[in-house]
Order: sequence, then structure tokens, then C-alpha cells
Amino acid sequence: MPLNIIRFEHQGRPQWGVIRGSRITPVPGDFPTTGDFVRSTSLTELAKLDGGVALELSAVRLLSPVTQNQQFVCQGANYRQHMIESGMDPDAKQYNMIFTKAQSCIVAADAEVIKPRGVHFLDYEIELGLILRKAIHAAVTVTDANLHEFVAGAVIVNDYSARDVQIPQMQFYKGKSFRTFGPIGPWLTLLDASDISKLKNLQLQLKVNGQLRQNDNTANLVYGPAETLTELSAVHDFEPGDLLSTGTPAGCALSIPSPLKQKIGALLPDKKKWEIFLSVQSKRTQYLKPGDIVEASIHSPDRSIDLGLQRNRIVAGS
Amino acid sequence: MPLNIIRFEHQGRPQWGVIRGSRITPVPGDFPTTGDFVRSTSLTELAKLDGGVALELSAVRLLSPVTQNQQFVCQGANYRQHMIESGMDPDAKQYNMIFTKAQSCIVAADAEVIKPRGVHFLDYEIELGLILRKAIHAAVTVTDANLHEFVAGAVIVNDYSARDVQIPQMQFYKGKSFRTFGPIGPWLTLLDASDISKLKNLQLQLKVNGQLRQNDNTANLVYGPAETLTELSAVHDFEPGDLLSTGTPAGCALSIPSPLKQKIGALLPDKKKWEIFLSVQSKRTQYLKPGDIVEASIHSPDRSIDLGLQRNRIVAGS
Repeated sequence: MPLNIIRFEHQGRPQWGVIRGSRITPVPGDFPTTGDFVRSTSLTELAKLDGGVALELSAVRLLSPVTQNQQFVCQGANYRQHMIESGMDPDAKQYNMIFTKAQSCIVAADAEVIKPRGVHFLDYEIELGLILRKAIHAAVTVTDANLHEFVAGAVIVNDYSARDVQIPQMQFYKGKSFRTFGPIGPWLTLLDASDISKLKNLQLQLKVNGQLRQNDNTANLVYGPAETLTELSAVHDFEPGDLLSTGTPAGCALSIPSPLKQKIGALLPDKKKWEIFLSVQSKRTQYLKPGDIVEASIHSPDRSIDLGLQRNRIVAGS
Repeated sequence: MPLNIIRFEHQGRPQWGVIRGSRITPVPGDFPTTGDFVRSTSLTELAKLDGGVALELSAVRLLSPVTQNQQFVCQGANYRQHMIESGMDPDAKQYNMIFTKAQSCIVAADAEVIKPRGVHFLDYEIELGLILRKAIHAAVTVTDANLHEFVAGAVIVNDYSARDVQIPQMQFYKGKSFRTFGPIGPWLTLLDASDISKLKNLQLQLKVNGQLRQNDNTANLVYGPAETLTELSAVHDFEPGDLLSTGTPAGCALSIPSPLKQKIGALLPDKKKWEIFLSVQSKRTQYLKPGDIVEASIHSPDRSIDLGLQRNRIVAGS
């Protein structure tokens, strides 16, 4: 059965706890990183923790359940409708787009997100994040049947993106790595073998100021977790606690030009092409402004898996 | 005065040492990471180490002077001639292209480089790598005058790249992150304030089977270390020991289509465009094959800074 684990600061000390409703049962022990926690605990033992000293959620400071030492690997263009709108054919499965975010962008789920000075097109991207259970140091074959051996649990990720940096500079890293651009949590939902198939039916919803912007289901993922981990295991290592964020559905502020417009744009001098791109984006009122409230939630239809609610206020960078 | 520091394994234990010629003077103490070493030692104190127990280079196993926990941040298209050949204008300075390599690709300078099964176009990229001296947790202004406060030293990096993965998949991360694709060293050359200006006049040379392929000078860098660190400090954090690799000069195996051909290619369906791209590359005999020997060296004209010689044999993946 899924178990929700939060990382928090109380009396100046970072700790881990099992959270049920708003009640936190601290986990005894010292786990400086997500990898340490995942390696040193088991869902079965953690589920037995109860009674004794408990804390109220309102009495602690929330921390990200993924610590800043872990890899932050992301998939791009990985939902069917999002790909279709971007002029790509999801059935062609040409390639699994992979990029990274800098670890220092990781913040708690209730953090203020800073719109950097000079960034005009700040966008949101709700994503299902998976936390690795064990080290992968060589090519392995991950299937739906053994996925639970590799994945410890799931989190909400919001892959905030400065579109005016990300898109014209061709590589996604810089535009997606600004400090505060990676809220994670509120908690890590640990999953056991019997829960793991439910990862294929999770509803993702993102609202800005109460208005629904993104609304899709992980059933529409193009490259699933098992095939993605199989592919990446042949490329590089993973350690326990590392994060694989599985891409965002349609509904972002970014307006992607139609395939025809992309072909016409390619004929223009680069400078002109990006002037037009930025001019089109500037008419999109969906981009985030200081004061906006972004809320993201992910859960199974029966709520037996509930990754909680992220809530970020956008603030202006100094 | 520059001081060359190697990391090596001797009698089963990773250690650090000052290397002069082929003679290693071990540094007392335990430094698990490059960050630990940089934080805990000073060039002045290290330079005084001498005499006593010494080891011969041939008696130890070389390790990378950058440990696999450090960030591996890279610049792309950052030499004038390389940009011109890629159809870009170095004087326009449109943007500083930044991407990352997975930390697990880091290996020693004498490592065998594995050409993965299924990768056809394995390429080399000699680069000057800079090792960060101190943490950067907020925007800072780095100039030529204070660069030595931020940069502890320099290394040779070879940014091996699977072009058939890197280019058609748009993001560079995956194609550049295969295990063994990041030899670093042989040593870390620590620099003091009086040496740092010499970073602007280092000669880079890369040979394959004795034939010169890349030959350029850091004087031709487009985005220099000071402005790059200034820019990135406004995006994300750096820790001591992190690596910034500053891009490669012209002369790789990769044949970049002319700007005109790129525009024509953009009109074609994606599948056709990449078929043509791969067909053109398949005629390039410069791509690496198992058995090839790649040698890379970087030094100042007067050899007062000498980052040593990397030598990798290419082997076939299993």
C-alpha cells in the first residue's frame, strides 16, 4: 500500500516522517540525502511506525523529498496530445528526448518561484517524477513486471521553464535550471510491487489562479518508465534517490508554431526567426506573472495513490 | 606557479599527490571528492610538499582528478573557427550554449573509451576544463581580475560524442553521456592569481593515430570563463570541484552542413532530413573505430602551464 513520506525541518534539524492527513510521525535516524533514506528504510517497516510523538504539518517547514545531490533527469515531449500540438507524431516514436535540470533548482512544494529579472516568458510544466530505488551501473532490462525493483516511489515535479532562454538557445538546460525552477513534492509516495501498475493511470492537473491549464493522464505517456530506464541504463548510471521526471502534457503557456510555420521559420535568418517567435509569445497572456498562484496535483482516480498538492507563488527576481 | 596534482589508486586506496616529472609526492589526508581536496588544501602549502616517500607514476593506477559527484557543465560551439564552419557568426554572440554530461561518464585520462553497440558516429572533442575553487550560490560578477578567486585550476577534457544520438535527438545530453565519454586529466593543474591570465593563451592539440585533427588556441574562445561564470551564476549554483568545460575547436569528425544546406534540410520531412544527415556522416572516415588511439594535449607556448597528455584507446562495446 502506498505510503507518503515527507522531509521537513523541525527545531532546526532536517528530518523525514510518515504523513497521514496533517499528522507526521517522524522516522528515527539521520538520512542526509534521498538516496540514504531510500537505501536505509523499507516501506513495510515505515508503515508500522505509528503512535508516540507526532507533529502537525503546520508546525514544520516543508523541504523537498529529493535532496540537491541527486540527479535530475527529464523527458521532453512525452505526452501524445502535447506531441501532436508540437507537430510531432507520437506513434512514430522517433526518439526519447532527455535533458537535465541543475540540482540547485530543487525546492520544496510550497516554495516561492522566482521569475528572474530579464526572463519574460516563465512557464509551468506539471510532471510525474519517479525516484530510483537502486543503483543502475550497467545496461538492464526494465519491464512492467520488475519496475518496482527500480522505482521506489513517485513525486510531483513542476519543471518551470524560461521559454525565452530555453527555446532560442536550443539546449533546454539553462532555461530550465534557474534557482527555484524545480519544486518537488509535497511528499514522496513510496510504492510497493502491488501499487506500481497504478503509475499508468494517474491524473495530472495544474491550475493557475484557480483556472485549469493542464489536465491529462499518465495513460497518454509516449515513452513509459520501463522503456526509458532500459534505454538510459545503457547510457549512464543512476543512484538510489535519483529523479526521473517523465514529461509534461499539453496546456503550457508556450505556443508552439505549427509544422508549416516551423518550416517557414527555418528559411529565415536566425535573428528574424527568433524575433517572430518572441513576438508571438508576447501575446500569450498565459505566461506567469509575479503574484500568480500555481497549483499542481497528481492522483489515481480512486485516490489510493495521492501525490498531494503543490502550491507556488510567483515572485519577481531582484 | 602552476602545480600539477594527480589522483591515483595505490595499494587499493584512492589518494592525491603532487606530480613532478614521473614522481608523485602523496598529499597527506583523505579527500573523497575533488571538492574536498580543493576546499582543504592550498597551492602554497602543496608546493612545499617534497622529499620523503615518493611514488613512480608507473606504479599507480591513474584516476580522474574530477570525482563523479561533481557537476559536469559544458559549453558548445565556443571557438571562432568552429562557429564559422557551423554557419554561425562568432561576433554576433547570440547566446552561450550550455549543456551537461552525466557524471558517470567521467574516467581517467588513460581509460579505454567504449564505442557503444549501435553507435556509428563516435567523435572526439578536446576541451579546456576549469575546476571551480569556491561555491557560487548567487549571482556574482566574475572578471579577468578576480577569476582566480573562482577557478582553482585546469584539466584536459575530451567530450566524446555519439553524433547519431546527439544531433538528431536535439538535446546533447544523451549522446554525450555514455559511460567512458568523459576522460579528464591526467592531472589537475592548480593555478594562482599570477597564472590565471595564461588561460587565454593555451594551445590545444588532438591527434588520432598520430594524425593532427584539432589544433587551436584558447585565444579564440568566444565566451570566456569570466563572462560564462558571471552568466551561469545568475542561473544555478556551483560547488568547489565542479567542472566547466569550455567547448571544442574545429576539426571534429562531424561534418556540419552549410547554412544553405541546413535551410534546405529544414524543408524536408524530419525522417528524410536525418537520413541525409546520417548518410553524409557515413562517408566521413574521421569517425573513431575500435583500435584507434586518441591523444590530447593542452599547454601554454612556454610550457609553464602543461596540462599533460591524454591517451585513449577506442574499444568496441559488448
